[in-house]
Amino acid sequence: MSGHEHEAETVLWTPEHPEAVRWAPDGSGVDLLDQTQLPELTIWRRCRSADEVADAIRRLQVRGAPAIGIAAAYALALEVAQATSLPPAALLQALRAAAGVLRQARPTAVNLAWAVDRVAAVAETALAQGTEAAAWRAWDEADRIHEEDRAMCRRIGEHALTLFPEPEDRPLRIMTICNAGALATGGMGTALAPVYLAHGAGRALRVWALETRPLLQGSRLTAWELSRAGVPVTVIADSVAADVMARGEVDLVITGADRIAANGDAANKVGSYALAVLARYHGIPFYVAAPSSTVDMATPDGASIPIEERGADEVRRGFGRLTSPEEVPVWAPAFDVVPGRLISAIVTDRGVIRPPLGRGIAEVYG
Amino acid sequence: MSGHEHEAETVLWTPEHPEAVRWAPDGSGVDLLDQTQLPELTIWRRCRSADEVADAIRRLQVRGAPAIGIAAAYALALEVAQATSLPPAALLQALRAAAGVLRQARPTAVNLAWAVDRVAAVAETALAQGTEAAAWRAWDEADRIHEEDRAMCRRIGEHALTLFPEPEDRPLRIMTICNAGALATGGMGTALAPVYLAHGAGRALRVWALETRPLLQGSRLTAWELSRAGVPVTVIADSVAADVMARGEVDLVITGADRIAANGDAANKVGSYALAVLARYHGIPFYVAAPSSTVDMATPDGASIPIEERGADEVRRGFGRLTSPEEVPVWAPAFDVVPGRLISAIVTDRGVIRPPLGRGIAEVYG
Repeated sequence: MSGHEHEAETVLWTPEHPEAVRWAPDGSGVDLLDQTQLPELTIWRRCRSADEVADAIRRLQVRGAPAIGIAAAYALALEVAQATSLPPAALLQALRAAAGVLRQARPTAVNLAWAVDRVAAVAETALAQGTEAAAWRAWDEADRIHEEDRAMCRRIGEHALTLFPEPEDRPLRIMTICNAGALATGGMGTALAPVYLAHGAGRALRVWALETRPLLQGSRLTAWELSRAGVPVTVIADSVAADVMARGEVDLVITGADRIAANGDAANKVGSYALAVLARYHGIPFYVAAPSSTVDMATPDGASIPIEERGADEVRRGFGRLTSPEEVPVWAPAFDVVPGRLISAIVTDRGVIRPPLGRGIAEVYG
Repeated sequence: MSGHEHEAETVLWTPEHPEAVRWAPDGSGVDLLDQTQLPELTIWRRCRSADEVADAIRRLQVRGAPAIGIAAAYALALEVAQATSLPPAALLQALRAAAGVLRQARPTAVNLAWAVDRVAAVAETALAQGTEAAAWRAWDEADRIHEEDRAMCRRIGEHALTLFPEPEDRPLRIMTICNAGALATGGMGTALAPVYLAHGAGRALRVWALETRPLLQGSRLTAWELSRAGVPVTVIADSVAADVMARGEVDLVITGADRIAANGDAANKVGSYALAVLARYHGIPFYVAAPSSTVDMATPDGASIPIEERGADEVRRGFGRLTSPEEVPVWAPAFDVVPGRLISAIVTDRGVIRPPLGRGIAEVYG
């Protein structure tokens, strides 16, 4: 394997957090930790084609924009590797077909198309040197995307760590919603990255994981990955967060973001806005941690961010049982918008942006 | 049946809301609408003994302090009716044994012991006139408790209605949590009583029902009973409430209460505190509606209210499936405390108490 990759492993890998995606050790496929089965079952799904990875993405077996991008990148590399005995023109055709299938698996995830296009471009260029070269370069590019993501997570973690207060004689109490952790990325996550770093450095921590209705990414995924890493974590229903704050049991709130507007408004998993209002009311800092790619200078403010509405059945029969009358409407937005005025700082891999957020964002991303 | 009962039916009964408890028409038992099966199945359970009613109470097939009290009162009347052929001493023994079983079904529900004691006392006194007299008086007392509860609900509704703003050219938008409706009482509920009255008077309304984790009384019960009554209701996950408020879609919040302290702090279903903070942040009035019996002058403030903690499994496997790792702790308080400073008014059957709540409560209940 390439030299940079081994070096990256040494520097960036911490054994504490789980992987969401990995290249099968024998090169026969892409292994995905099936997140729909967690925490009941820890099942690795070996995908042996781009079709199978696209299927896994559609089923949310792998989720989180960075993790999806990495899975798709490896999937494309796999298709090329399986086509090296074909004539170059046939390989090119197979490559383009697979890229199309992967791009469409979740059309709204920006990372997905970006990662697929990157691997496809490199492979097409290398094809001039033969099909084996194309396969090798495709794999190397996918692995590079993975490695860059690991490094990005770590930088977010290091920057976010500067926001953590000085250690006291008790554990630092952190609250988070949904899963912005290792399972959503190729590395140690975004909002959870400073948690892993602090824990790795021996700092006492305690995390409050909001269950996160309707799909329960907090209780199913965040609780699983933190617990597995030895980080003390307690699950609460979303409605319990305010009470925990009122009891003085929260030092800071940190969440991920799905899109950050130019003025600092941030869209994230629904419930984040409530958490930000409650944090402000209780005098608790509210931080947002996300990759630079999340900052969208073309979106002036939160009102311009389109909010995906999910199906009523995620609420109405999310657990396989009818928990609300069939005939009663359910309003189920997937995200809400935290206005910049409620955000104490935004952390990306490029550093910490403090209020006024609009000015800070313009300086870094303008 | 007694004259007062028929009159009460005429005045107090509205066909729109469901009943939680009723005396079987043929006198052979107490019929309970099984609330654990709603909304999937509408099953009436006919309980033919105090043991069976106690079992139903323990299983939460009937819930809500007023509804539990009524069910237990009828259950005791049933036991006496089934023992009229026994010698008076044996009937007394059966009566006392049944009262003991019923009182212990849920020891924390104050209404339960109160209702059982009331029926037992009347029956014991009437026993001097024979077992048939005891049976008749026990039934009459149970029915009186039911009727008083219906009247109490209606008075709460009438008082709460005075807090509703004048009609505009759009429906009034009301938000509520848990179930403080007909299913929790012998009548039209507490927080939902003004909703039924306004709807019955032809006013356009729209209710936002918070799902209410972990036991989903909002999506299962409130949505069911309002929808059945023709009141437009939309279910949302608890975490969505803030976003609905921010969109300007809520005119008022109204909830029930499990205990109201002398200073106006109110304990209610967990999530109520968050709702009160969010309502204040968005400039939306937050009302609490509850029976007078909920006001506890012996409790000076919210900090003195004991908060029941529920089992972790209600969160962890509430739907029959593991949704949080077995080894991760869950903190699951059943209630939280809304400080009086966040409550715009408290409504009981005795009227509306406005801030300063402590003074108002002292005037009415001191």
